This record gives sequence, structure tokens and C-alpha cells, in this order.
Amino acid sequence: MRVAVVGANGKIGQQLVELLHNDAEHEAVALVRKEAQQKQWQDKGVETRLTDLEGSVAQLADAFAGVDAIAFTAGSGGNSGDDKTLLVDLDGAVKTMEAAQAAGIKRFVMVSAWQANNRENWADELKPYYAAKHYADRELMRSGLEWTIVRPGALTDDKGSGRVDIGEHLPAGKIPREDVAHVLLGCLTTDGMVGKAFDVISAYE
Amino acid sequence: MRVAVVGANGKIGQQLVELLHNDAEHEAVALVRKEAQQKQWQDKGVETRLTDLEGSVAQLADAFAGVDAIAFTAGSGGNSGDDKTLLVDLDGAVKTMEAAQAAGIKRFVMVSAWQANNRENWADELKPYYAAKHYADRELMRSGLEWTIVRPGALTDDKGSGRVDIGEHLPAGKIPREDVAHVLLGCLTTDGMVGKAFDVISAYE
Repeated sequence: MRVAVVGANGKIGQQLVELLHNDAEHEAVALVRKEAQQKQWQDKGVETRLTDLEGSVAQLADAFAGVDAIAFTAGSGGNSGDDKTLLVDLDGAVKTMEAAQAAGIKRFVMVSAWQANNRENWADELKPYYAAKHYADRELMRSGLEWTIVRPGALTDDKGSGRVDIGEHLPAGKIPREDVAHVLLGCLTTDGMVGKAFDVISAYE
Repeated sequence: MRVAVVGANGKIGQQLVELLHNDAEHEAVALVRKEAQQKQWQDKGVETRLTDLEGSVAQLADAFAGVDAIAFTAGSGGNSGDDKTLLVDLDGAVKTMEAAQAAGIKRFVMVSAWQANNRENWADELKPYYAAKHYADRELMRSGLEWTIVRPGALTDDKGSGRVDIGEHLPAGKIPREDVAHVLLGCLTTDGMVGKAFDVISAYE
């Protein structure tokens, strides 16, 4: 499977590209925003293309040529301001969905956030971010694409344990980004994951 | 018809409440956020209730008891920051839709923005606002409510002319808020306006 990773310069995106690239059955296309971000991938022999989530649907669709699936791992990041939250995490995600449709790609895996589906669990200081993810997820569920929505808990840079809990309503918890990347790969390669949305946190030890 | 005006303290909301209150066939319920905003309406004999678009769906549904229709005229305002754009213009609007459903109210008229349906026409500095309106409108169209979406051009405080152009794709233009309030009343009281979304600007003289 040839998978376009949107947000390949992000911490989850980087790990997902590596996983795909090191898996003989798969191929990654690393989508990044700046030319300077392409070199690291080219040096590793990973195909890379330029995209801008604040640009047009048409340029996104071009970047999806020849791809079998899309993993949306991009995030505006907590520090970039809520204008970017609206324009990247929400509108950028929906433009990516529209581009997938324009390019004839069905499979779409989304990195969302723990309990983004449930307003009662949105932390006060992160409410705008949760709202953006919430409405992006809603758009995806109604897009007609073959979607999976992965809602990780608080992300850490710890080494992955390979052990996660998955469920519709999990308690708050942490999860290493490395484990999230493995879950995304699992969603792409496991039958029966289409049309599923779930929280994921590290398994209780 | 008994119409709850969400955002009754706003410039369009105030005018719509006045129009409804002065029309023998209708009644306004002025929904405001702060107690201090209630007195002006009480002094005029207008029923007023407290609501918070950043609060729960349940308190919004309570405020809609006994109402026949909802006019959403609230806006975070350009100066309040894009966190409020996400939480008021988008999530607040969708919570209002959910509250309408919970309260069994069908009719819902939304004040949107000129060409909010069309990314190509979003002015750069207002993009987050347009995105919020865009996704609120999309949610409304899929809500099952009996919706009308009014997308006014650049709002002015000029006296209304009573003459407006309405259409699916109008050129950029201005419109006095007074005229927008009249259009909203017209939408509520004219057959055939359910399921319609349109731009509205002052008529070319």
C-alpha cells in the first residue's frame, strides 16, 4: 500500500513514514509544507511532495496522485494560535478529504484527540483545538470516504511500549507517539477498521 | 410566532427583537449572555432569558422552552480572538442546533456571511471567521432542522433601504444591519424559505 502521510514533518508523521518505509509491503509518500523539510526524506530514499493545507484543494489532490491511502497526522500545534487551529486542523483537514475524493482515494485515517467526540471531556485550555478536531471528525464521518478516526490521549515522546488500550470511551491517559504511529499502520493494514472511531492510550501495566 | 433571538444584544439581534416585538403577529424572546443586558428588554416588555453559548446544550434547550423558532444572530465579534470564533461562531452555533432538537423546535434561521460557502471568496484576514461560519452552516444543513441560511455582505449601521438583492452567488457588497433584520423576519414568515441558503446585499440603485 502506498500511503500519503500528511504532516510528515510532525512527530507522529515522521514515525509513521519510517514505519511504512521500513515495511517491505508498503511505501510512504511524505507530504511536507516546506522545501527544506524534503531533504531528510530524500536522503532516506522516501518520496516526498510539497503541500500546503492552507492552499487549494486542487494542489492537495495533485499531491495524492498514485496514492492508495491518506494518513492525516498534521496539526497546527498548540503554539500557533487559534486562527491556525481553524485553518489547519479543521479546514485543512476537510480540504484534504475533498482532495482525496477528487483524486479518487477512498482510504483515510485521521489522527484526532482523546474524546474529541465528547464536549464534556474537553480541557478548558484546549477547547478550541478539541472543537476543530471534533468538527473535522464529523465531516470525515459524513464524507463517504473509508475512514478510521484514532483519538490518542496525551502524547509523549517516550519509547513505545507496543501495548495500548483501545475503546470508544477510555479514561484520560498518555500514549507515546511511537505507539500512535503503530496504531495508524495497524488501521491501514487490518481488515475491519473502516468506519471505526476510538480512543487509544497506553495499556495499564 | 414566538421567536428566540440568540445574540439579542448584538446589532442585528437587537433590531430583529424590535421588529418581532412591534409586530402584532409575533413575539420575541431575547436571549442574552449577561444579566445586565436583560434590563433594556424588560423595560420594553420583551421577554428575556439568560444563555451562554459556551455553556451546555441543556441550558440552551431550557431557554428555548415554548418557542416556535430560533434566529441565530450571535457572533463572537472580530475582536474577541479566534478561540471565541471556534467556540461561539462554530461550536456555539452547533450547540444551539442540538438544543433546538432537544427542545423539539424545528425552525432555525442562521445569520452567516457572504460566500461563507465558497472558500475562494474568503478575505485573508477574515479566513478563520469564514471557516467557522462555513462549518456551522454545513452542520445546520445536515441537522434535520427546517433551516434558512442568510449570508449578508459587509454589515453597516446605515439606515435600511428596504431594497436588497438575494441570490446564491452575488458579488461583494454592503448591507445595513437593519435590512438584514428585515430579511430574517421575512425568512421566518414567508413560505418556501426552508432549506434555502443565499447571499444578500443592498440592491443596486
